Amino acid sequence: MAKKLTSRTEDYSKWYNELVVMADLAENSGVRGCMVIKPYGYAIWEKMQAELDKKFKETGHVNAYFPMFIPKSYFSKEASHVDGFAKECAVVTHYRLKNDPNGKGVIVDEDAKLEEELIVRPTSETIIWSTYKKWIQSYRDLPLLINQWANVVRWEMRTRLFLRTSEFLWQEGHTAHATEAEALVEAKLMCDVYADFAQNFMAMPVVKGVKSESERFAGALETYCIEALMQDGKALQAGTSHFLGQNFAKAFDVKFQPKEGKPEYVWATSWGVSTRLMGALVMTHSDDKGLILPPNLAPWQVVIVPIHRNDEQLEQINEKANELMKALRAKGVSVKYDNRTSFKPGWKFNEYEMKGVPVRIAIGPKDLENGTVELARRDLLEKQFVAMEDVETMVPALLEEIQNSMYNKALSYRNEHITEVNDFETFKDLLETKTGFLSCHWDGTTETEDKIKTLTKATIRCIPLDAKEEEGVCILTGAPSTKRVLFAKSY
Amino acid sequence: MAKKLTSRTEDYSKWYNELVVMADLAENSGVRGCMVIKPYGYAIWEKMQAELDKKFKETGHVNAYFPMFIPKSYFSKEASHVDGFAKECAVVTHYRLKNDPNGKGVIVDEDAKLEEELIVRPTSETIIWSTYKKWIQSYRDLPLLINQWANVVRWEMRTRLFLRTSEFLWQEGHTAHATEAEALVEAKLMCDVYADFAQNFMAMPVVKGVKSESERFAGALETYCIEALMQDGKALQAGTSHFLGQNFAKAFDVKFQPKEGKPEYVWATSWGVSTRLMGALVMTHSDDKGLILPPNLAPWQVVIVPIHRNDEQLEQINEKANELMKALRAKGVSVKYDNRTSFKPGWKFNEYEMKGVPVRIAIGPKDLENGTVELARRDLLEKQFVAMEDVETMVPALLEEIQNSMYNKALSYRNEHITEVNDFETFKDLLETKTGFLSCHWDGTTETEDKIKTLTKATIRCIPLDAKEEEGVCILTGAPSTKRVLFAKSY
Repeated sequence: MAKKLTSRTEDYSKWYNELVVMADLAENSGVRGCMVIKPYGYAIWEKMQAELDKKFKETGHVNAYFPMFIPKSYFSKEASHVDGFAKECAVVTHYRLKNDPNGKGVIVDEDAKLEEELIVRPTSETIIWSTYKKWIQSYRDLPLLINQWANVVRWEMRTRLFLRTSEFLWQEGHTAHATEAEALVEAKLMCDVYADFAQNFMAMPVVKGVKSESERFAGALETYCIEALMQDGKALQAGTSHFLGQNFAKAFDVKFQPKEGKPEYVWATSWGVSTRLMGALVMTHSDDKGLILPPNLAPWQVVIVPIHRNDEQLEQINEKANELMKALRAKGVSVKYDNRTSFKPGWKFNEYEMKGVPVRIAIGPKDLENGTVELARRDLLEKQFVAMEDVETMVPALLEEIQNSMYNKALSYRNEHITEVNDFETFKDLLETKTGFLSCHWDGTTETEDKIKTLTKATIRCIPLDAKEEEGVCILTGAPSTKRVLFAKSY
Repeated sequence: MAKKLTSRTEDYSKWYNELVVMADLAENSGVRGCMVIKPYGYAIWEKMQAELDKKFKETGHVNAYFPMFIPKSYFSKEASHVDGFAKECAVVTHYRLKNDPNGKGVIVDEDAKLEEELIVRPTSETIIWSTYKKWIQSYRDLPLLINQWANVVRWEMRTRLFLRTSEFLWQEGHTAHATEAEALVEAKLMCDVYADFAQNFMAMPVVKGVKSESERFAGALETYCIEALMQDGKALQAGTSHFLGQNFAKAFDVKFQPKEGKPEYVWATSWGVSTRLMGALVMTHSDDKGLILPPNLAPWQVVIVPIHRNDEQLEQINEKANELMKALRAKGVSVKYDNRTSFKPGWKFNEYEMKGVPVRIAIGPKDLENGTVELARRDLLEKQFVAMEDVETMVPALLEEIQNSMYNKALSYRNEHITEVNDFETFKDLLETKTGFLSCHWDGTTETEDKIKTLTKATIRCIPLDAKEEEGVCILTGAPSTKRVLFAKSY
């Protein structure tokens, strides 16, 4: 690492952009707004995928794959959906190129124009519900509990690695149910699944809530969400789960025959998380030395670095390191041994600090004499010498301790940054100074929400599911309100 | 299954199309040439992915993700590649839609025209090598051993589920090496990995070989391949691994600094298999009753069906079935227990035969009395009664026996359908009657290959890696030849 990372206090945004690249997570590509997810970043995403996929399957879901192209006319079928999604998107108009008759290269063949343009999916409700129409006839076909892992495209003018890119990777669940109650249970369940994942795997505390009307998914009757707080006091929406009512069933005419009575429209949910979670992970935990990974998501939980002056020493260390690796792997710990001679130990220390490997073990000639190793934990940057024979029992416990400690640290920060505010002057002031979530009364109107946004750039991140019933008055209009909502500036 | 499957002798092509739909593998979508992979089909694909991904990682590869959009100009950089790939493809020309001022729906916003058109990747060499340019400076950066799981699009005029669709799923490996020798080893290694997977997981025998010049990948110096034979005597290319020489390094100016000496161009390979393997799986094994799955790829290796007249009987059977499931799962066998009362046992028998579940266990009231179950294997359609207590030890062995038996059956068929042919009249005759691979001498020219293709529709599927040196004369021209190649009609 020749280049030093900008510090968070100096420029938080710059710190983030640099860290993502320097920790080998992702980088910008030659295609505007599209990123390359580098192997190390992708390995973390694979860990996220594996755990989420397991949770989805445990809750009865199966995976499938639907076309990434959506005929333009499909979007027009659900009125509010088209406004939300059929605007900034990639449009395929032709299906052939030809050699340029005037010179080098290729040009679009105007004879190969599509009769109807195809949209690269920004989300798949329309293509999936046009398919569900064929799959659902009877109550025996319900529920349909289907998930898809896919790439999607939303043409963004201002992009940032992971947080907002034109193409991103995600999963989207799309379920169909016989009753409203069952669909509501599903939408809430998946919000819980996301919250559980965020807290126990990403060590990222989240608030579960519902969105206000203006922040709802286009086509949803209710949007459940998990909201996290980043180290700069801005909120980040980390996952959403939508109760879609019968909107898409009506738009695509999907009815089922119940056990008794007349055919009825089907009830729907959809839910998703994306590679945006990678951005959330970075901004929840990392420091001025680079990434800090919770052990549950680290591609390597432990890295072993040999410290040696000559080949003979290296050989002796290799022997010990291999024993240690074997013992740790037997305990389910993922270990990398970096004994490349083309890089110096100091370079490696910086490299694995930048990459956020939770535990580093260094072994030098002195350690061989003393039967010790140097054990360093990334999150607290603490080092200690421990007996080599204790390492295999200490490390699994240490990894658990790091996982919990990272969560608790993030939780303390988050809780310290939820402030109850009762007047608009303090509200404005806090947004500029302390930041974080501001817990306030609101009169429930979109008009007020919009005004507050215009005045302060803060929006309602969610109405917490556990909000207490409490009499109060709207922070802007003074109109009566029965519970507090969370405002924040957000990503 | 109200509808009966067309038999293979009646119409092989129709049989295939019907089976894919009736076994719930995939179906056509509302988007021309694009399929929906249904949950059951996708579960098989997931098993393929998991095993291949494991093999890739065991051989030192890592996953990453590159943009699916490729600027048009990238294709023109490698001369032979552009001819092969930049023609029938999906072209994105605009990035916005707007409300139609003349009425309902949305139209393309002509103000949002891209300066340079983007191509949806038909394969990713160009976008990846434009990135590798940034990643490779020194010998220390090599080798790069990267794989990507992705969707790709090749605009096809005539499509068939899994075999040829406009959008399909695949993996594409793209590696960079310091030496020619190392890249060649890699290209051959991945061909071996594919062959191993095909034979041991899909129970599908393959011939390893190299392609003739005209069948080579656009931009490759050598294409290694695995070729399988379907039940109708037509060949199917199941996987390819390309030695790309320095073509892409030169096109994208990717050089590295060796330990000593001047910068050199990097050597490359690429290799891929796709959802086409699903079609190969179907056509290698299935019969007129539906799919037959090798146990290594079956989402459920065993299905248990209760036979009951009343609820009391069902309850008793449930108890036994749950014990059995637990015992089988403990042995690593995947089991489904279908005790839905909304479907009759006969319907379930047909359903799981159609879906190719390797082993079916039926339990009725008589079985409870006698302590037996009825055990049926799908591949041979054989049934036997066995003692309930023996099931948990019998089934794992039976699954292994089925896996081997399916491979051996397919191998016998394949071997019986490799015919050495020495004159062109017999060649033409066999293509119409016995079909299969025709092992013939060929003079090595593209001209002769083209002529044979025009006359018979047969092409050179591969030059087998294990072809014996043998003096002979070309089947068409009589010119001298030193080894036999395999001709066939193909998918």
